[in-house]
Amino acid sequence: MSPFAGSARSTDTWQHIRVTRDDGIATVTLARPEKLNALTFEAYADLRDLLAEVSRERSVRALVLGGEGRGFCSGGDVDEIIGATLGMDTGQLLDFNRMTGQVVRAIRECPCPVIAAVHGVAAGAGAVLALAADFRVADPSARFAFLFTKVGLSGGDMGAAYLLPRVIGLGHATRLLMLGDAVRAPEAERLGLISELADEGRADETAAALARRLAEGPALAHAQTKALLTAELDMPLAAAVEMDAATQALLMNSADYGEFHAAFTEKRSPKWQGK
Amino acid sequence: MSPFAGSARSTDTWQHIRVTRDDGIATVTLARPEKLNALTFEAYADLRDLLAEVSRERSVRALVLGGEGRGFCSGGDVDEIIGATLGMDTGQLLDFNRMTGQVVRAIRECPCPVIAAVHGVAAGAGAVLALAADFRVADPSARFAFLFTKVGLSGGDMGAAYLLPRVIGLGHATRLLMLGDAVRAPEAERLGLISELADEGRADETAAALARRLAEGPALAHAQTKALLTAELDMPLAAAVEMDAATQALLMNSADYGEFHAAFTEKRSPKWQGK
Amino acid sequence: MSPFAGSARSTDTWQHIRVTRDDGIATVTLARPEKLNALTFEAYADLRDLLAEVSRERSVRALVLGGEGRGFCSGGDVDEIIGATLGMDTGQLLDFNRMTGQVVRAIRECPCPVIAAVHGVAAGAGAVLALAADFRVADPSARFAFLFTKVGLSGGDMGAAYLLPRVIGLGHATRLLMLGDAVRAPEAERLGLISELADEGRADETAAALARRLAEGPALAHAQTKALLTAELDMPLAAAVEMDAATQALLMNSADYGEFHAAFTEKRSPKWQGK
Repeated sequence: MSPFAGSARSTDTWQHIRVTRDDGIATVTLARPEKLNALTFEAYADLRDLLAEVSRERSVRALVLGGEGRGFCSGGDVDEIIGATLGMDTGQLLDFNRMTGQVVRAIRECPCPVIAAVHGVAAGAGAVLALAADFRVADPSARFAFLFTKVGLSGGDMGAAYLLPRVIGLGHATRLLMLGDAVRAPEAERLGLISELADEGRADETAAALARRLAEGPALAHAQTKALLTAELDMPLAAAVEMDAATQALLMNSADYGEFHAAFTEKRSPKWQGK
Repeated sequence: MSPFAGSARSTDTWQHIRVTRDDGIATVTLARPEKLNALTFEAYADLRDLLAEVSRERSVRALVLGGEGRGFCSGGDVDEIIGATLGMDTGQLLDFNRMTGQVVRAIRECPCPVIAAVHGVAAGAGAVLALAADFRVADPSARFAFLFTKVGLSGGDMGAAYLLPRVIGLGHATRLLMLGDAVRAPEAERLGLISELADEGRADETAAALARRLAEGPALAHAQTKALLTAELDMPLAAAVEMDAATQALLMNSADYGEFHAAFTEKRSPKWQGK
Repeated sequence: MSPFAGSARSTDTWQHIRVTRDDGIATVTLARPEKLNALTFEAYADLRDLLAEVSRERSVRALVLGGEGRGFCSGGDVDEIIGATLGMDTGQLLDFNRMTGQVVRAIRECPCPVIAAVHGVAAGAGAVLALAADFRVADPSARFAFLFTKVGLSGGDMGAAYLLPRVIGLGHATRLLMLGDAVRAPEAERLGLISELADEGRADETAAALARRLAEGPALAHAQTKALLTAELDMPLAAAVEMDAATQALLMNSADYGEFHAAFTEKRSPKWQGK
């Protein structure tokens, strides 16, 4: 995606997720607390489309994904998704499962950093959404459960069998995806599944503070860092080093790089413009 | 491999390893305790062939690999293997080393989960057999030693230089493979080399309980999870996400997925059939 | 690189780094302590060229990279590099950034193990030099800071976005490269960024002892282990297993492998020749 706009118009109203924008930060909230924010077909579609739109907005410099109520997200709704898929034909099943994977790809390919703010349960698709984020800010109530096998499905859902071994190693990833058991915050932190542990009840606040820091910082440098981390998981070293060289040569012409040097020389803090 | 059978017949008797089958679980025991279960050419060949045969048996839903006596496996026998290779020509050396690698590939490609039950020493090829398993259940007496350099060989043996960095990270893997020093259970657990720590003397029992849980669960979902974990180590994200989507669409037609939903609706536990 | 020599002559004097050779060990010291060993264009070029020359010397069996004075290396010099790049054209910027990447590739491709001896600060390019090494021996004063975004550049510099996720996992790597904050020794050790923790003030000594052990050991086996670890990060399992088989078949004809067996049979320690 890119900031260039053609005929397509942005969406005015997101009906299945709550979206606010504030000074460079997009905050997306799964807001179905009476169902532990279980995902519906429409919520997946909204996440996919919102991430595509946000990827075109240069003004959004960080995105926070959180959940309202007692937990982050309990995954696909048992009735509205699992029940419905039982009546689908092959093409429909593929369409649905491709959409969920597109949401994960959209999180990884969104130029700005994505922060998952996790409290309570992050289960099934909810656990993978958090896994796909760049940062997982979680409070001690957080528990992650890649529980797909417990509903008779593969633990490799929405890229989880790709991402989880790259985050916590193949041994732990096998255990978590094969057995589907919940991992509580202390173990999640030990495994490297949590980026920052927040105080009880303060995952949203702590995530917002991190988003603020990122948005006010050298946002173009952050975006390039994310793009390289994502791309270089799939590249050999020689290509990665060449990609880094081209990226740094480019950024050495950026306003923020010049500003750093000027600020350093004048013994003051840099004023980042994010470009 | 697949359950389709042609002309080839199954092996009646495994002479160089002990094999039992019990209600969906194959238990393979390295049973040469007087030599700390040191491997011979014939034991490697038996492991390779057994894993190929097991991969054709839909009825085997979990495989446990353990060792009789004081330890799990001390690796290739110093006399019967190292001594013998000193007299081999180039083609024979390649044949032998390819066979050991085939055992590792067979463990990774075996559709059902493989659980290594480790107590005492897991050294050389023994350490790599455990590493290739999906789960390493180890008791506090376990120690892993990738001691190949100590016999003048490369630490990258049987895929260890591929697998170990993906399990414990490149830094620790370099140290373990380059130096060949033994890693005791507490460090192995810290590094992520142990999936489940068993009580002293109970690695076999704990592994058997895990195998039972896996065999009685949604075994097709487990098998697909393993296949995706293995394949997606070598795939880019976009392909992995597409592979997940196709797999889930497939499993959404499986008996177990329907059973989960029925059981959930009826507020009872699912009766898994593994298909 | 290889030990075969043609017309090119070795460099007599390294003017921008300090290099000593002692009984199979090359010790490279960043020796600009008044600037916390900040790197200059010439120091990068010397590191690149030295590593290429060392890679041709069969006699060098381990290389130690350390820093004189209060820290290991504070990264690229703010005036001599950052300031200078502000006046460079596109081709010059690419030439510079490719050179830094070549240093990292040279560390990874150098046949002998490279040990970074880290005390105090390892920042920016200094952190990546340490990251590219096979072993990071660090004392409690060590702190690693991948601070590229703090100067307005991408955290993916010199291969860091390739290497760091493979050493400490994608979650922690994202945090370290995106935010650029310093990681002190206890956290670095927990993350797997430190290979061996030395006593305060003894990183150099501990690294020298490790180098001595490696140089006096089966050096050809060590070199092959390193080559396989590096190559197999970028290979699928089947290819890795085949590469291991060919490598072991080769080494089973080596002097050291035969010596191990002779020594074992004669109940004495092996006398390694490194060939």
